[in-house]
Amino acid sequence: MVEVTGEDPVKYEKEWLPLVEKARKLQADSMVKEYMIPEDKLPGPERINVMNVPYEAGTMTEKELKITETPGYALVAQMGKGELTAKEVLIAFVKRATIAQQLLNCATEFMFEEALARAEELDSKFAETGKIVGPLHGLPLSVKEHLHIAGKVCCAAFVAWLNVVPDSDNVQLALLKKAGAIPFVRTNEPQSLMHADTNNNIWGMCKNGNNLNLSSGGSSGGEGALIGFRGSPMGIGTDIGGSIRFPAAFNGCYGFRPTATRVTMKGAELAGAGQITIRCSEGPLAQSVEDLALYMESMTAGEPWRYDADLPVMPWKSAAIPEKLKIAVLWDDGTVAPVAPVVRALKYAIDKLKGAGHEVVDFNDPPMLPEIAEAINFSFFADNGQADIEALAASGEPWLELTKFALSLAKPLTAAEQWELNDKRDKARSAWLDKMNDEGIDFILGPAYYSCSPPQGTNVYWFYTSMFNCLDMPSTVFPSGLRVDPKVDVMDGFKPRTEVEASNWTRYDPETCVDAPIALQLTGRRFFDEDVVEATRIVCASLK
Amino acid sequence: MVEVTGEDPVKYEKEWLPLVEKARKLQADSMVKEYMIPEDKLPGPERINVMNVPYEAGTMTEKELKITETPGYALVAQMGKGELTAKEVLIAFVKRATIAQQLLNCATEFMFEEALARAEELDSKFAETGKIVGPLHGLPLSVKEHLHIAGKVCCAAFVAWLNVVPDSDNVQLALLKKAGAIPFVRTNEPQSLMHADTNNNIWGMCKNGNNLNLSSGGSSGGEGALIGFRGSPMGIGTDIGGSIRFPAAFNGCYGFRPTATRVTMKGAELAGAGQITIRCSEGPLAQSVEDLALYMESMTAGEPWRYDADLPVMPWKSAAIPEKLKIAVLWDDGTVAPVAPVVRALKYAIDKLKGAGHEVVDFNDPPMLPEIAEAINFSFFADNGQADIEALAASGEPWLELTKFALSLAKPLTAAEQWELNDKRDKARSAWLDKMNDEGIDFILGPAYYSCSPPQGTNVYWFYTSMFNCLDMPSTVFPSGLRVDPKVDVMDGFKPRTEVEASNWTRYDPETCVDAPIALQLTGRRFFDEDVVEATRIVCASLK
Repeated sequence: MVEVTGEDPVKYEKEWLPLVEKARKLQADSMVKEYMIPEDKLPGPERINVMNVPYEAGTMTEKELKITETPGYALVAQMGKGELTAKEVLIAFVKRATIAQQLLNCATEFMFEEALARAEELDSKFAETGKIVGPLHGLPLSVKEHLHIAGKVCCAAFVAWLNVVPDSDNVQLALLKKAGAIPFVRTNEPQSLMHADTNNNIWGMCKNGNNLNLSSGGSSGGEGALIGFRGSPMGIGTDIGGSIRFPAAFNGCYGFRPTATRVTMKGAELAGAGQITIRCSEGPLAQSVEDLALYMESMTAGEPWRYDADLPVMPWKSAAIPEKLKIAVLWDDGTVAPVAPVVRALKYAIDKLKGAGHEVVDFNDPPMLPEIAEAINFSFFADNGQADIEALAASGEPWLELTKFALSLAKPLTAAEQWELNDKRDKARSAWLDKMNDEGIDFILGPAYYSCSPPQGTNVYWFYTSMFNCLDMPSTVFPSGLRVDPKVDVMDGFKPRTEVEASNWTRYDPETCVDAPIALQLTGRRFFDEDVVEATRIVCASLK
Repeated sequence: MVEVTGEDPVKYEKEWLPLVEKARKLQADSMVKEYMIPEDKLPGPERINVMNVPYEAGTMTEKELKITETPGYALVAQMGKGELTAKEVLIAFVKRATIAQQLLNCATEFMFEEALARAEELDSKFAETGKIVGPLHGLPLSVKEHLHIAGKVCCAAFVAWLNVVPDSDNVQLALLKKAGAIPFVRTNEPQSLMHADTNNNIWGMCKNGNNLNLSSGGSSGGEGALIGFRGSPMGIGTDIGGSIRFPAAFNGCYGFRPTATRVTMKGAELAGAGQITIRCSEGPLAQSVEDLALYMESMTAGEPWRYDADLPVMPWKSAAIPEKLKIAVLWDDGTVAPVAPVVRALKYAIDKLKGAGHEVVDFNDPPMLPEIAEAINFSFFADNGQADIEALAASGEPWLELTKFALSLAKPLTAAEQWELNDKRDKARSAWLDKMNDEGIDFILGPAYYSCSPPQGTNVYWFYTSMFNCLDMPSTVFPSGLRVDPKVDVMDGFKPRTEVEASNWTRYDPETCVDAPIALQLTGRRFFDEDVVEATRIVCASLK
């Protein structure tokens, strides 16, 4: 247990608050004023589900609403036929994102002028040539704040890093831009990036539009909240323990955590350099499964392995999966079983999958879960949390509660102890692959989280997602199509096995969580990313 | 500096010597007696170059001699046309390997009966179908001892592991067998596998046939000595700091250290599980460059990534390199510059390459060499050498001098210090890739070692090879075609810059090193393994 050290209100207020205020001013000034809902027309405090506000606010045309509810691949197709311009697509999303920002605080900065100039440039090129510039032609793109944008402050929600200004773009961002995407907004994230929730001392709490009492998830919470609200068709998040998947699950959109070394992380601010046991992945959040594939295909077409020595040379290829899938259901991680709505969603999905002719079996005895948990919990902060502690202490900013929780796991390891964890990790990877091979399992279906989104600032349970970071198996998260219904999703008959389970279950209350989307997670073999995305498309088609 | 601990002559003699003697007896008994040269016809102690003995011994026919000097790919082609049988190919190599064993002590065990049965089976199949079973049909294969063979003791030259009996084959071995290769001999390796030389308490010193006073290199020294002697067309070695490349270089054959995660290491005994900073690669030694490619293509055709979660899905593909290469020459690692014969070989190669129309430039200012050296030196034994020390102490066997040297680098690190080394490693990988991209360099040509093979038991300098383990850039080693000539390769005008350089240079003496092959090393970008093997073919063609 690390003690909170380095908080220094005097230093913070004197030296750093000006930079924080500058960041907040940039956030406010960057909004397009004419697209904002007047203060007096904003929903009142009694309203907790604000997803319908874009239809009520009067700032968006019917066409614009429709654009923002069209998947990215379809928008590109329409732009490619000249049915839509990049400019009108951009404006539609900026309008909806503006509403999202007013309600949810999901953005740290809009980049409207640059984006508009680029959209107009693309429209001119299309007018001249009749051709799109690439597979993401004119598609607006949101970008998590800690990913570099040349010339813009990049702080990873650490106050002390508000003076970091990278001189080139994040490599994935650069490749997506090359494919025609237009970055137009940067999104919120938590202090230290190590919360499954989104709050910090610079921009504050990001909320969930489905239920303003609930968490937007994290650390890519700004992305989740924005894309769930349909304020962006596609965004770049990052995930070291669930940071793409919590936000996708909690806000009702799609997310994909690729195998870590299939995707470059070059050009990002992040504490913990050299921690190579559990690696962070940069990947997409979107409004459809197809857009997860579109992102991956468009990005890898730019050959990121030419710029990042970490990456194997693996172009995105066609999936190679059987027509009828064998899907094994991970019902329980043995520590915190899923609560009522998640069980309902799993049963619903199984029913639909069987109906579509797929084989569904139980994923019995998941191998080595305690060792996996140990490798995760003690690797993140094996430096006794010093990287994070120093980044916090450098400004003297106060530690948020979830930062204290994350760092409570910090324990200084020796290299030999780290080797033991690495070895457990590797043996677990083997054991899971062997099990899938032995039992002929194509994919693993399970909870994205043991529950729906919990109240803000409370989420401390990561294992349903983080186990797959340790195993480095690619996972998607997608909406089951169901939402929490207080009449149905009651906990009658649920008996906690342990205090840990009981304590986690208290975060689920059917009334509090009303309307929360219920998500599921699909996982495949390491490096078989194409297959898991394609299988997700098939599963989602069955769910519809 | 680790103190020598755990030596226990009483325990060793009482409990372990019987197992050592059993291993030695197996080694002796496994030889095919009728193929051995009678004791009184063996060359006398004055003879130091024994490479010609197979021509003098009278145990091999002219056809058999020719078979053993034909590259593997050509042998398979001839077997595919029915011009040779697998049986006669096997017998030719077993005969030559028997001589090699009598002279060099390169084998730990012959597997003649199993191999003969398999050769006859393949011949029958070919007679029936007229088709070869795979791209390695009937090709004899040597295998480094620490790679698992089902049912056979596998000890990694640790006495204490003489009771380890794996129940399945090493995965690469299994895939090579599936492609038609016939494992027929297991090869010698050093205590702890961490010597660039081959000696241990079980089977003893492996010598170099070009010059019996010199080292066979290590840790795949048995492979190098055997294949250099043409007692095997192809073998499996492993390399974490140069262990494929030293033996290939010192014995005058070809070796390839692939990018670590392109090749599975599943099924091997090795101390240091969980050390993931500098990873060991399993790869080929052979008698031609073409056979390095044949090995990689045949092995990856078996889809090792289906059995090993470590591996990206990267089938071996055609190389994609320009017709005229831009090759940068790494003249000096800044610590121990190459001695006279190596400089001569580099100049010779440059001349030939320029003559063939390639562009040759200097590789100036190799980035971050001190950080790379630090990451290597302190990662191997960041557990304070405990994994090795315990493996030694378990039997009480005496530590060899080179084990003491290796473990003298042991220093217990914290996980945070290991992270710092990991970060240096990653920054170095970036810096080298950026430099190659910025300068348009296709490949790096340099020494395989600062010298030719040194006297046995003396080699303590690894950096020309180990830097590429840290960078994880694929490298081949190949003969320049030149050998040390005491009349030419004198050190006139060489002034050591430091005591370290002076001390290393003392291991080179033109008279002592007479006839030693002089090798070079070619290195390419991480994961572009196909390109570096193909470029080596082009370079070797220019040298001829």
